[in-house]
Amino acid sequence: MRTGLGLHHYPTRAGLPDDFSAFAGRDVKDHHPRPGEFGETAHSVDRPDLCVAWVGGGVVFRGGLALGQQAGATGLTVLGMMSEAPKLTVEESQEVVARILKRVDGRVPVVVGVSAPGFAQIDTLTRAVMELGAAGVMVAPPGSLRTDDKIVNYYRQVAEVLGDVPFVLQDFPLVTGVQIAPKVIAWIVNELPTCVCLKHEDWPGLEKISALRADGTLERPLSILCDNGGLFLPEEMGRGADGAMTGFAYPEMMVQVVDLCSRGELIRAQDIFDAYLPLTRFEQQPGLGLATRKYTLAKRGIIAHDAQRRPGAALSAATRAEVDRLIARQEKRLKELN
Amino acid sequence: MRTGLGLHHYPTRAGLPDDFSAFAGRDVKDHHPRPGEFGETAHSVDRPDLCVAWVGGGVVFRGGLALGQQAGATGLTVLGMMSEAPKLTVEESQEVVARILKRVDGRVPVVVGVSAPGFAQIDTLTRAVMELGAAGVMVAPPGSLRTDDKIVNYYRQVAEVLGDVPFVLQDFPLVTGVQIAPKVIAWIVNELPTCVCLKHEDWPGLEKISALRADGTLERPLSILCDNGGLFLPEEMGRGADGAMTGFAYPEMMVQVVDLCSRGELIRAQDIFDAYLPLTRFEQQPGLGLATRKYTLAKRGIIAHDAQRRPGAALSAATRAEVDRLIARQEKRLKELN
Amino acid sequence: MRTGLGLHHYPTRAGLPDDFSAFAGRDVKDHHPRPGEFGETAHSVDRPDLCVAWVGGGVVFRGGLALGQQAGATGLTVLGMMSEAPKLTVEESQEVVARILKRVDGRVPVVVGVSAPGFAQIDTLTRAVMELGAAGVMVAPPGSLRTDDKIVNYYRQVAEVLGDVPFVLQDFPLVTGVQIAPKVIAWIVNELPTCVCLKHEDWPGLEKISALRADGTLERPLSILCDNGGLFLPEEMGRGADGAMTGFAYPEMMVQVVDLCSRGELIRAQDIFDAYLPLTRFEQQPGLGLATRKYTLAKRGIIAHDAQRRPGAALSAATRAEVDRLIARQEKRLKELN
Amino acid sequence: MRTGLGLHHYPTRAGLPDDFSAFAGRDVKDHHPRPGEFGETAHSVDRPDLCVAWVGGGVVFRGGLALGQQAGATGLTVLGMMSEAPKLTVEESQEVVARILKRVDGRVPVVVGVSAPGFAQIDTLTRAVMELGAAGVMVAPPGSLRTDDKIVNYYRQVAEVLGDVPFVLQDFPLVTGVQIAPKVIAWIVNELPTCVCLKHEDWPGLEKISALRADGTLERPLSILCDNGGLFLPEEMGRGADGAMTGFAYPEMMVQVVDLCSRGELIRAQDIFDAYLPLTRFEQQPGLGLATRKYTLAKRGIIAHDAQRRPGAALSAATRAEVDRLIARQEKRLKELN
Repeated sequence: MRTGLGLHHYPTRAGLPDDFSAFAGRDVKDHHPRPGEFGETAHSVDRPDLCVAWVGGGVVFRGGLALGQQAGATGLTVLGMMSEAPKLTVEESQEVVARILKRVDGRVPVVVGVSAPGFAQIDTLTRAVMELGAAGVMVAPPGSLRTDDKIVNYYRQVAEVLGDVPFVLQDFPLVTGVQIAPKVIAWIVNELPTCVCLKHEDWPGLEKISALRADGTLERPLSILCDNGGLFLPEEMGRGADGAMTGFAYPEMMVQVVDLCSRGELIRAQDIFDAYLPLTRFEQQPGLGLATRKYTLAKRGIIAHDAQRRPGAALSAATRAEVDRLIARQEKRLKELN
Repeated sequence: MRTGLGLHHYPTRAGLPDDFSAFAGRDVKDHHPRPGEFGETAHSVDRPDLCVAWVGGGVVFRGGLALGQQAGATGLTVLGMMSEAPKLTVEESQEVVARILKRVDGRVPVVVGVSAPGFAQIDTLTRAVMELGAAGVMVAPPGSLRTDDKIVNYYRQVAEVLGDVPFVLQDFPLVTGVQIAPKVIAWIVNELPTCVCLKHEDWPGLEKISALRADGTLERPLSILCDNGGLFLPEEMGRGADGAMTGFAYPEMMVQVVDLCSRGELIRAQDIFDAYLPLTRFEQQPGLGLATRKYTLAKRGIIAHDAQRRPGAALSAATRAEVDRLIARQEKRLKELN
Repeated sequence: MRTGLGLHHYPTRAGLPDDFSAFAGRDVKDHHPRPGEFGETAHSVDRPDLCVAWVGGGVVFRGGLALGQQAGATGLTVLGMMSEAPKLTVEESQEVVARILKRVDGRVPVVVGVSAPGFAQIDTLTRAVMELGAAGVMVAPPGSLRTDDKIVNYYRQVAEVLGDVPFVLQDFPLVTGVQIAPKVIAWIVNELPTCVCLKHEDWPGLEKISALRADGTLERPLSILCDNGGLFLPEEMGRGADGAMTGFAYPEMMVQVVDLCSRGELIRAQDIFDAYLPLTRFEQQPGLGLATRKYTLAKRGIIAHDAQRRPGAALSAATRAEVDRLIARQEKRLKELN
Repeated sequence: MRTGLGLHHYPTRAGLPDDFSAFAGRDVKDHHPRPGEFGETAHSVDRPDLCVAWVGGGVVFRGGLALGQQAGATGLTVLGMMSEAPKLTVEESQEVVARILKRVDGRVPVVVGVSAPGFAQIDTLTRAVMELGAAGVMVAPPGSLRTDDKIVNYYRQVAEVLGDVPFVLQDFPLVTGVQIAPKVIAWIVNELPTCVCLKHEDWPGLEKISALRADGTLERPLSILCDNGGLFLPEEMGRGADGAMTGFAYPEMMVQVVDLCSRGELIRAQDIFDAYLPLTRFEQQPGLGLATRKYTLAKRGIIAHDAQRRPGAALSAATRAEVDRLIARQEKRLKELN
């Protein structure tokens, strides 16, 4: 497969290209983060939760392209909106990105969140992380944006600022307050060639994926990677998404579900999904999700401890017990399924 | 058990009273809505989705008390915020409530949502529905309320307007925008004896239940019935909730989970809950949930059709197929469990 | 001038038609509400603040047209969003509208606010008030509307529900949360012939008026009447507005400013405006404005007393003293100007 | 008068201390920014709008105290929320603060806005600016804060992070979404000795000042400096405020009004205020205000040009003409008054 990772999702929908199942089946599955792999970086700089794993049909990202293919289109998103990244100083952010990029060493593309009120900030951070080896950046709209034209106009300016750096459009209305119609996403994608991916976090958002995948809407390929904590992943894949880009504590769930959906094994995909769902649901609680995820990751040995940046509340004993119980049930159910 | 339904939840937590398991186990389980029971009313007046079933340890409601006990503390909430009630004319609302109350005929308590910008409206609707036989009313705070004192003061005035009519405090920040601290709920409950129940819809909200159930917080019993579409029911019961008050299309899930939790059969409770969870999650999508629920209820034969009041979008064919698939899997899984 | 009141605003901008200055100069000025005129109605039914006076180049309203011309294009808006109308019961609302319409007796067009979550409610109220003699209705978008297409689609459905009843599009983002681009307003107006007027309450909103008045935007005349409490009236007139539709306690300010602007006496218009500005500014405080207006109207003898519907706070003694002082200064300044 | 500037506002209300009128009358009036004074700094680093002038009875600020007294309690707030500061990179912010502090050279206290999602960021910026000579910092609550206790708890943690650095509590609900009751402000002030000033931007907010100034509310002096663009300055002074801390393009208006109010010359204060009011009102338009202010400051020769940081819209020709006209009228009116 010679085109970029993002170039084949229409074939995916219409009939798999020869090498697709191999690519998605073999590599994606094997590449979910292992304890100590990306975790060590995080631990040693004491901000263990900055990485959001994403899986699935990827994005034509500069630099990360070849390795992304090898790796099965798995990548990382760092400095995301729902992580602790907003609580880091600029110096810490830069150090974290540098360490993660060094650790990843090009094996998978790394996308860096650069949303900011001013273009000077976006520009400065983008240049820094691209030099360090990032594959691209992610930009969410500022909360004050309303009306279709203002949204399009904002991304026109963003693309101009970014130059040839590929970017992910982050569509997360629950947090940003900005609702972007499918038509507007299509305008942006069709007009701005450096917009290579949609991070889809609208809720509800399934119809939006269908609208974007409808014939005649997008004039070129666009990777659609979904968030919502993975809570709708099977349906999102069914509507035409390429994968997930979110921070659930068990990225292997996403890897497997995306892989199985891509191979058409929908029943098995849903079985796996359902086994994790009680915890997925629990982690999706706003505000509490990050603390839960850190607790789980620490419990799994992937990060060293689950302390949160201040200000931030600790998990109560009751919550820890609830998570423990959900994990125990999850493991039991997964065994039944295997 | 001589006290009202709401009076025994501390014993519930500390050790079941003699007659509790019988009451909760036998009656609640048998009393979930059956096709044609409450549905007929809804169907014949063409607004099939006005009822929100609630289950679990109930409320000291005038009139409905005796029957509530017999019926196993099952009741109905009508004219709720997330139903189509806000789209009815006043005449239609009154007719709906009248028909439902006649149909229920005192077998279970019926709570009527009466939230409104002005006290004149609250007063008028309350008097009308209490005369028709409602057990009490439900009042959410107006969206402009901020600061602890303003919230307490609002409910003071509400209680004065309502006189001796018992009321449910509806705590639903995602929609109202009003955040009510556990301390503030306690102030309201401790000061206003007619506040007999909390409809708990905070998200995340588990710590709030624990805070309210902590020793010394509430000076008298309070029924806590949870919404959030039932998405956290096992954990809510574990924290000290008395039951559910929400509109999921399978109230029997809630009845069983509440019943099993009350009897301490937590594993079985969670098994049942998990079997429904993929659909519970799907129905919880904001805006889309009501349409999904109506589609499911119509499919189950409980209501005649799934059309929505205008303005309101119809479910797409893709969404219907997703729901169909989830229901088929749910039925299969429930069989495996039985 | 044989066309409707709304049909001549382009001529207004381009050069006054023969009879315009006479019509706007003589009649408008003389027709601001006098104590006991519309006030009596309000007083006797104890809801003195339901009327919002509007002035300026009006709207082609059925029924009210001829009298509107005679009266100098002055009219009334009742059951507006910022009045106490949302606190009335349906029965009270209907009584108020009936009494006001009877009292007005066709001398000026009366517009009735009918915004509601459901079309059944909009339909029912519209039919009732049109039968009573209203000239048209006013509809604000529901707060959940986002994206250009959804807004246009909503008004398409509204127009279908209203049939041939003319309506005012109320554009009030600060309260509704819905931002409507000038382009979207133009789409609505160009497509829906019954949309005859824009109630303009965007803040800031001057560029929006200019955008709508730019050549080629609107394909037919549209009356633009401004709110924002009158706080930007001279600039709004300069940008192409036709008048004001708001609730300041001294509608004669608006009548004079609109009249003077229409005649090109801009310096005098601004002098008059500036004399009232300290009070206009004070009345514009959110939440407090209505209480201030009722206090002032009661002080002027136009309404009987300034009590507010519950829930609602009374003005403090300090606030009353501030208003008294502002009124005293205003009267002094107006004398200096005359 | 040997106590800090903030220590005498109760005497101010109850009867002026001997040296107060001299202090407030002579120095404050003479110290409003002059062209080229603070402007030069801004100009040369191409971010001319970072300074917000504040005037009036000041704050016990470390370092800035003695000079603050000499200077007549005039100071500067930099990196404020409504300036272009949020669009600067961290490096630019630090450079701006450094240049301004060097330029000011201790003649007046300089407060630096340090609000941020994480305490690490607040801590880092605070240490940096305090070393450079800032008098204190300003902290607004994060937008997610709700309930009285959470607000108090947040400021407890802030005070702990800041150590002995004095801070201004910024109360700006329209932008932050956080409503802080007077009682909560009093809790914070009474408990945290380093909270030395309230930046008051609630709207409406006059009753809040009165509540704070009521006997028994505050257990120690608190400077209350008001924003709202200066739109309510005479009333705010009448309620017990100590001055203004806002960014109107004519800080001399605020200096004079505060001075005159402090000396009891209320009629003259209101006359001056009214002369500026048409422009004050115009500059208060959300989003547009900053552009208007930069245009005016450039027109006055205080800054070199009025370009805005991207993203940011330019003023239209129509808006410029409106501002020109308002300024011309303002100058004429001020001449009439002198």
